[in-house]
Amino acid sequence: MADQNSFSVESVTAFLSELYRAVGMPAEDADYTAQCMVQTNLWGVDSHGVLRTPIYVTRVKNGALSAKPEIKTVAGGEDKALEVIDGDSGIGYVVAREGMKRAIAKAKKFGTGTVLAKNSNHFGAAALFARMAAEEGLIGLAATNVMPNIGMKGNKKPSTGNNPVAMAAPLYDEFPFCLDISMSNVAGGKLLLAAKKGDKIPTDWAVTAEGLETDDPEAGFKGFLLPTGMHKGFGMSLFIDIIAGVASGGAFSRYLKSMYKNAEEPSLTCHVFYALDPSCVMPGEDFSTRMKEWAEMVKATPMVDESQTQIIPGEIEYATEQRRLKEGIPLPAELVEDLKKLAAEAGVEFSLKAV
Amino acid sequence: MADQNSFSVESVTAFLSELYRAVGMPAEDADYTAQCMVQTNLWGVDSHGVLRTPIYVTRVKNGALSAKPEIKTVAGGEDKALEVIDGDSGIGYVVAREGMKRAIAKAKKFGTGTVLAKNSNHFGAAALFARMAAEEGLIGLAATNVMPNIGMKGNKKPSTGNNPVAMAAPLYDEFPFCLDISMSNVAGGKLLLAAKKGDKIPTDWAVTAEGLETDDPEAGFKGFLLPTGMHKGFGMSLFIDIIAGVASGGAFSRYLKSMYKNAEEPSLTCHVFYALDPSCVMPGEDFSTRMKEWAEMVKATPMVDESQTQIIPGEIEYATEQRRLKEGIPLPAELVEDLKKLAAEAGVEFSLKAV
Repeated sequence: MADQNSFSVESVTAFLSELYRAVGMPAEDADYTAQCMVQTNLWGVDSHGVLRTPIYVTRVKNGALSAKPEIKTVAGGEDKALEVIDGDSGIGYVVAREGMKRAIAKAKKFGTGTVLAKNSNHFGAAALFARMAAEEGLIGLAATNVMPNIGMKGNKKPSTGNNPVAMAAPLYDEFPFCLDISMSNVAGGKLLLAAKKGDKIPTDWAVTAEGLETDDPEAGFKGFLLPTGMHKGFGMSLFIDIIAGVASGGAFSRYLKSMYKNAEEPSLTCHVFYALDPSCVMPGEDFSTRMKEWAEMVKATPMVDESQTQIIPGEIEYATEQRRLKEGIPLPAELVEDLKKLAAEAGVEFSLKAV
Repeated sequence: MADQNSFSVESVTAFLSELYRAVGMPAEDADYTAQCMVQTNLWGVDSHGVLRTPIYVTRVKNGALSAKPEIKTVAGGEDKALEVIDGDSGIGYVVAREGMKRAIAKAKKFGTGTVLAKNSNHFGAAALFARMAAEEGLIGLAATNVMPNIGMKGNKKPSTGNNPVAMAAPLYDEFPFCLDISMSNVAGGKLLLAAKKGDKIPTDWAVTAEGLETDDPEAGFKGFLLPTGMHKGFGMSLFIDIIAGVASGGAFSRYLKSMYKNAEEPSLTCHVFYALDPSCVMPGEDFSTRMKEWAEMVKATPMVDESQTQIIPGEIEYATEQRRLKEGIPLPAELVEDLKKLAAEAGVEFSLKAV
């Protein structure tokens, strides 16, 4: 695309980390957040990567995001496989890393662990945290609630959040199994893209601000998204809110805040992290053998076009990552301008290097 | 409908239990299985209730279903929150009851518990088991793998199972929150219904036996169903197979058998049961208050038609149950004839009472 350039992974990561340090985040947390965001772009999930930098920086400056959160255990002791942590309004990446780290530790001890996190914020791509489990040979799931932003047909206002969930498992291959989905039929970014292109949208993507049917992406973007599989996505979204929000003792449904509209307030976001350790069931090499055989079975599915192979979740992200590691991360010109402004404001050198 | 009559709940339950006892099931298991199947019809899920009696009886007679399974723990001891049980080819209802019972016990001890079951069979509606947790004030999830019977567009043969999952939580109201969905866009029963009515079907419901696009329900029924949300349902189905099948040490993907096509063999079905005990996080009354407030928030969603209210998963099933408890359970004439034959073969009195 003409309106974007590609930048080296190293330079983007280093720049973002400098930016987060400049607004007060500890070096390790700044590094981690920067790495997470760049990793997300490497997978091709541009909607959840570097693009979010301006709002995060704004929110840290506003005090809506605590730069130095004190994450505390609020329920579940040493003898429990369930734990609840309070994220102290930290950036979601840092709270979520802690949540999944503890879920993994619980799973290694008890065979399985669930950690709920309350008082957190946007954590970017849920895949980041589900994959932490897979990297250690465990099965993992990460999900989050968000303020109501999707609804059923017939709703005049959104009735639930698009509550993303990611599920991962080791494939002992170049990439893990990793599915990362939200409960809306399509991502909001697709409406913006359609609007930019002047395309119409299918009427099961979104409704207008009044809850009425529409094929106009701008009207849909001003309204709200519809759930995937209608009652299926709706119900799963509600269930995520029950576990993450209601059961954690944190915020749920309309108590949650928008990170954009309520840029001066903590989002009160709640997450859930689940891990299962197969080595509690069988030797690690047996699980590895079984996972490989499973993946081969799925990939051996006969295809209508015999030159094709069935893709496993995580495979496209891996291919994109390999390409972008060489070619750099494409960033829209508008975002680059925003980053330059942020750098100037924070007194940080704008150090992105075009590839 | 002209081709069906309604029968009293008591008479159907008693008759089914007699039938299961007659083919060798212990009284308690026969009672439980009969109650589960009738309960499923009460919720209006006729595809998973009494309709399945003939195949279950056939399978018990064939030895594909063990009438007296010895369910054993194969992994996870007293100090673990994860357990794997071997269902010994028992009927799914009995194995699943044991699985969720143990997941609940683990959750009460550790805050959360996961039980995987291998070597089981069809367990009917997953809601039956997720609701067991909700009845005790816990949050529950039940899922199962099945042989590949759905696939992505482009697949010539099915690539994964429609792997149902149910999620439940107490609402402290007349009914619990309960979502019970499969990973196909629609249930196979909808194709049969469309075929009976002579209707065409949308092309995202199913493909032909060759994997080609179709709007013909019979061609779709001979082929396979497509996933809900396409890659979303596909990926969730795979994840359920990984946890239930691969991690349990049981059968997965193409190792699983069809209960119909392989009526003389155990299906090797695997299940997963998850429970979370909110009383580990907060006093029970606090969770109850929070769940009620949550449900009120969802139900208070403004509607386009102000005379409507947003439905919560479980609400329709509750309404159907109240009606059918009075009006009886409608059974198709063809099924009633099948039940008469089964009764004669088993030497059991055909005791269904029309309402």
